[in-house]
Amino acid sequence: MIAYPPRGFPKAEFQTRVRRAQQMMQDANLSALLLTTEPEIRYFTGFLTRFWESPTRPWFLIVPLSGDPIAVIPAIGAHLMQQTWISDIRTWRAPDYTDDGIGLLCDTLVQVTAPEGQIGVPDLMESHVRMPLSALRELENRLAPRTLISDAAIVRRLRLIKSDAEIAKISTACAIAERAFARVGEIAAAGVPLSQVFRQFQMLCLEEGADWVPYLAGAAGQGGYGDVISPASDSPLCLGDVLMLDTGLVWDGYFCDFDRNFSLGTANGAFQTTHSRLMEAVDAGFALAKPGAVISDLFHAMNDVVNSGNDGSDAGRLGHGVGLQLTEWPSIIKDDHTPIEPGMVLALEPAVATGDGLLVVHEENIVITETGARFLSDFRPQTVRAI
Amino acid sequence: MIAYPPRGFPKAEFQTRVRRAQQMMQDANLSALLLTTEPEIRYFTGFLTRFWESPTRPWFLIVPLSGDPIAVIPAIGAHLMQQTWISDIRTWRAPDYTDDGIGLLCDTLVQVTAPEGQIGVPDLMESHVRMPLSALRELENRLAPRTLISDAAIVRRLRLIKSDAEIAKISTACAIAERAFARVGEIAAAGVPLSQVFRQFQMLCLEEGADWVPYLAGAAGQGGYGDVISPASDSPLCLGDVLMLDTGLVWDGYFCDFDRNFSLGTANGAFQTTHSRLMEAVDAGFALAKPGAVISDLFHAMNDVVNSGNDGSDAGRLGHGVGLQLTEWPSIIKDDHTPIEPGMVLALEPAVATGDGLLVVHEENIVITETGARFLSDFRPQTVRAI
Repeated sequence: MIAYPPRGFPKAEFQTRVRRAQQMMQDANLSALLLTTEPEIRYFTGFLTRFWESPTRPWFLIVPLSGDPIAVIPAIGAHLMQQTWISDIRTWRAPDYTDDGIGLLCDTLVQVTAPEGQIGVPDLMESHVRMPLSALRELENRLAPRTLISDAAIVRRLRLIKSDAEIAKISTACAIAERAFARVGEIAAAGVPLSQVFRQFQMLCLEEGADWVPYLAGAAGQGGYGDVISPASDSPLCLGDVLMLDTGLVWDGYFCDFDRNFSLGTANGAFQTTHSRLMEAVDAGFALAKPGAVISDLFHAMNDVVNSGNDGSDAGRLGHGVGLQLTEWPSIIKDDHTPIEPGMVLALEPAVATGDGLLVVHEENIVITETGARFLSDFRPQTVRAI
Repeated sequence: MIAYPPRGFPKAEFQTRVRRAQQMMQDANLSALLLTTEPEIRYFTGFLTRFWESPTRPWFLIVPLSGDPIAVIPAIGAHLMQQTWISDIRTWRAPDYTDDGIGLLCDTLVQVTAPEGQIGVPDLMESHVRMPLSALRELENRLAPRTLISDAAIVRRLRLIKSDAEIAKISTACAIAERAFARVGEIAAAGVPLSQVFRQFQMLCLEEGADWVPYLAGAAGQGGYGDVISPASDSPLCLGDVLMLDTGLVWDGYFCDFDRNFSLGTANGAFQTTHSRLMEAVDAGFALAKPGAVISDLFHAMNDVVNSGNDGSDAGRLGHGVGLQLTEWPSIIKDDHTPIEPGMVLALEPAVATGDGLLVVHEENIVITETGARFLSDFRPQTVRAI
């Protein structure tokens, strides 16, 4: 029997998130935060639904400078939002072709901010505003003299450091993926189409406990593969192929994101060498992953191994954060000097070019502790996985 | 052996889409379209990847007034974009903290538009601009005197009418979902937790041929359920429950979106009555679903049955379009007067309130033909599905 952590979070955790946001808002001279995307709204409310797959309706959360957040949402979401800790829930019947929530949102923002107030919106890399551009422009006009300005990276900074409860969920997702990866020999063999492997691997992830499987990428080829984002073709696996599967599965709303490379049959010498370099790169990154270092240190440590310190691959980075989303801030690149702090969850993702435009990518998930880091995925550097 | 249509589209289909867009651009006095989201970019290119799950990198497609589209994308996507019909692919190594593609995008737009040019961006309901707000503002400044204005609903109008090849893909997704629904008796029974049913239903969808399962919602309860967007709880199913499963699974990038209600054990009289009204509503909507009618006709026909013509449920609508996305324009509401045309794919989705805040929702997918409509899902009005 596999033990799972509890689902959801205690109310106190959301209250802490809001309190921290409000302290930062004070420092940044913001009267409120306006949030519009799934991870932003879920971070402060716990509102978890796959309904975001539908682009029809906008959803809004306001975090005022003091007091609890206010949800301004389509009526179809009221019942589910009432199950969260949020008590001030204002709804309109969406879709409304005359006013699809902008009036209600504007009225609410006017109520909780002074006319000279600045309203923070996440506006930096990796963010977007999830509402129609015409609605955004109307909102800005109607809110004047209030202004919409940058949230000063408040949401990013908060989400960067995971709580123990968040880490437990990511760790659970990682364990589920590891159990699925351990069973790839059941579904992959020479002659099996890659598309069938993809389909059945998702089934393994679900069988092993995933709530759903938002992300699966992968590839197969002799000596490596051309990219790591393509959908599966119907081409059959061949003896000697390197098969890579990279999954971002979800447990209770939190992702893992790591891959495994398999050798169809005994790995040849070239793949053994590639594999060793990737393991060495992960080791090198992991060794520096501790408070006191910065993200670019991890980049250089891994890049020295896989690229001899030269410019890296088209992927553009050697890893990233993981959490409410498949990939999160920061990016492990030479220009990222974010201090490494306890509670950060990272994917270390070195890639080796194997010639002819091919590459092999390896990925592990780690969490930063007070004194170093620990693996959330099951890093086994000695093993080339032959199936 | 189940026959599947071919994957992808012939190049001519994309060229037709672009040519139609360019005709409309001419009429709307637009020098180019700027597209930033997954369905918009895929519609014109065929670029199909699950990598959009990562929010890190922006992606851009420019449709100029004449000539083929130009992709301005992160280098990590170049290999896959080269497999499409797009030949002008310009890349930068993202993420780049100094200039994450805005410079390259701006240069490209300046190259294909005159200084007085107007660049169309989808800005109406159901759309958003997928780039950071700070990047959007920088782009607008750098493009001046060029302006970013509404795309005049060009992308919406094009996507509204599906080609035969698109309909074949949606139909395939529907057939896969029907085969999975037909097997729900294998996985659902009194005592089984709803969360397990969700997990195993997704496995059935994959086993029956889904590429992936982006959307599954559902609920169970005596006489109905409180909402249709909640994730599954661990509560066990009970004899007498109505179990609803609503899936948006994908085949070759196209969605189905419909649900099935099951009775745990023999349906009681109340559920039989509810079921009959839902079937009658679908019949009424379907009967009017033909060229010459408008969308609001379908609303009124169904609403007269399920709400006696009064104001409807919190869902806010009784159906919507289906295609590249789980839900698409139009919404079946009283204010939508879109003319019904051949090639539109719709979900008819009436809901009946069953008291105590509960409801039962039924959903079918149809396609409009030259003379009427046909079901893509397998509408069986006489059957209450008991398991």
